[in-house]
Amino acid sequence: MSPATWRSPLSAALHRNRAQPESRYFQLATVTPEGRPQNRTVVFRGFSEPTNQLKIITDDRSEKIAQIEHHPWGEICWYFTQTREQFRLSGKLTIVDQNYPDATLQQERQQTWQSLSDAARLQFAWPHPAQPRTEEKEVFSPPPPDVNKPLPNFCLLLFNPETVDHLELRGNPQNRWQHRQDESKTWFVEAVNP
Amino acid sequence: MSPATWRSPLSAALHRNRAQPESRYFQLATVTPEGRPQNRTVVFRGFSEPTNQLKIITDDRSEKIAQIEHHPWGEICWYFTQTREQFRLSGKLTIVDQNYPDATLQQERQQTWQSLSDAARLQFAWPHPAQPRTEEKEVFSPPPPDVNKPLPNFCLLLFNPETVDHLELRGNPQNRWQHRQDESKTWFVEAVNP
Repeated sequence: MSPATWRSPLSAALHRNRAQPESRYFQLATVTPEGRPQNRTVVFRGFSEPTNQLKIITDDRSEKIAQIEHHPWGEICWYFTQTREQFRLSGKLTIVDQNYPDATLQQERQQTWQSLSDAARLQFAWPHPAQPRTEEKEVFSPPPPDVNKPLPNFCLLLFNPETVDHLELRGNPQNRWQHRQDESKTWFVEAVNP
Repeated sequence: MSPATWRSPLSAALHRNRAQPESRYFQLATVTPEGRPQNRTVVFRGFSEPTNQLKIITDDRSEKIAQIEHHPWGEICWYFTQTREQFRLSGKLTIVDQNYPDATLQQERQQTWQSLSDAARLQFAWPHPAQPRTEEKEVFSPPPPDVNKPLPNFCLLLFNPETVDHLELRGNPQNRWQHRQDESKTWFVEAVNP
C-alpha cells in the first residue's frame, strides 16, 4: 500500500491542536435508506494500523448501523479550531460487529473495547438509545462490563477514505488541496482554488 | 407559526459558548445526485426572522448547489465545545440565488451581503473554487465588490428544520431531547435515552 499523501498533514493538525480534547471529534455524515443525509459528532479512535482506515466506535442499536448496511458511503468533516483547517474525507464504512468473520478485525474490536474509559464502556450497557427516556436512574448505573469481553452491541467502525479535501483558512489567499488515488491506488495531491 | 421548542435551548447554547468564534460554525451534510453524503463546515448567519430558518451563505459555483437542487434535504450537526452539547437539525434547504422570484427574500439576500466583512465578500470574486490552483496571486486581490449589490454568484441558503435532536454530554446520565412537530406543525419535545 502506498503511503497516503494526506496522512502527514492530518498528523500535523492533530499534533498542533492537541491541547483541545475536541480536536479528536469529527462529524460523520451518512445517508438513510430513504436517501436523506444524517450527521453526528463521533470520536476519532486512531488508525487501524498499518492501513489508512480511521477507527470509530458505535452501538449496534444506533440508527447509523442500518444506514451503513444499506449504503456504506460516508463523509467525515473534521474542523480544527486552533489551526483553522478542515479535512473532508469521503469513503466507505465497514461495520465490525460481534459476528464479523475476520479474526484480526475481531481482535482489533476487542482491543478498542479494552482501550475505552470505564465511562465509555458503561454506555453500551445503558437502555436503548433514542427511545423514550427511562425514568429509573439505576439502569444508567449498571455493573461495569467485562474489560476483556466487548458487549454484544459494541461495534468497531472502519472508515476507508477514497478522497480527502484539505482547506487551510489561514493565509491570504487560503490554501486548499485535493488528495486522490490513481488507477493503481497510488495517492497524489493537487492544489486547487479555495 | 408556533414558537419552536428548540429555539430557547439553542439560544442558550449560543450565548454560553459566545467566547469561541467557532461556536457559530456547524457542519452541513447534503447528498449528491449519486446518493453519496457530503459534509462541510459553514458559518451560521443568524435566523431569517420571524421564521425558524437558519441563514447560510454560499457561492453558486459550489458543489452543494447542484446537490441541493437535486435533493433539498440536509442535516446540520452543531457541536458546542464549551458546554459539550450537540444539536442535530434535519430539514430542507432553499437556495435564494440572484433569480429567486420572492422580493422579500431578495431583500434578505442583499442585507446578508451587506452584513458580510470585506474579506468575506471578496471571496465571491475569487477564481472558481476547487478548480486547479490559479497561480496568479493578483486574481485573489480583485477590486472590492459593491457593498450594496451582491455579486451574481452570491447565494443565501435557508435551512428549515423539521426535527431537532439535542444531546447534553454533561451530566450522568447524559440528557437528550427530540423536538418534532405534530400534524398541525406545532412543535413538541420528548426526553429520550442518550
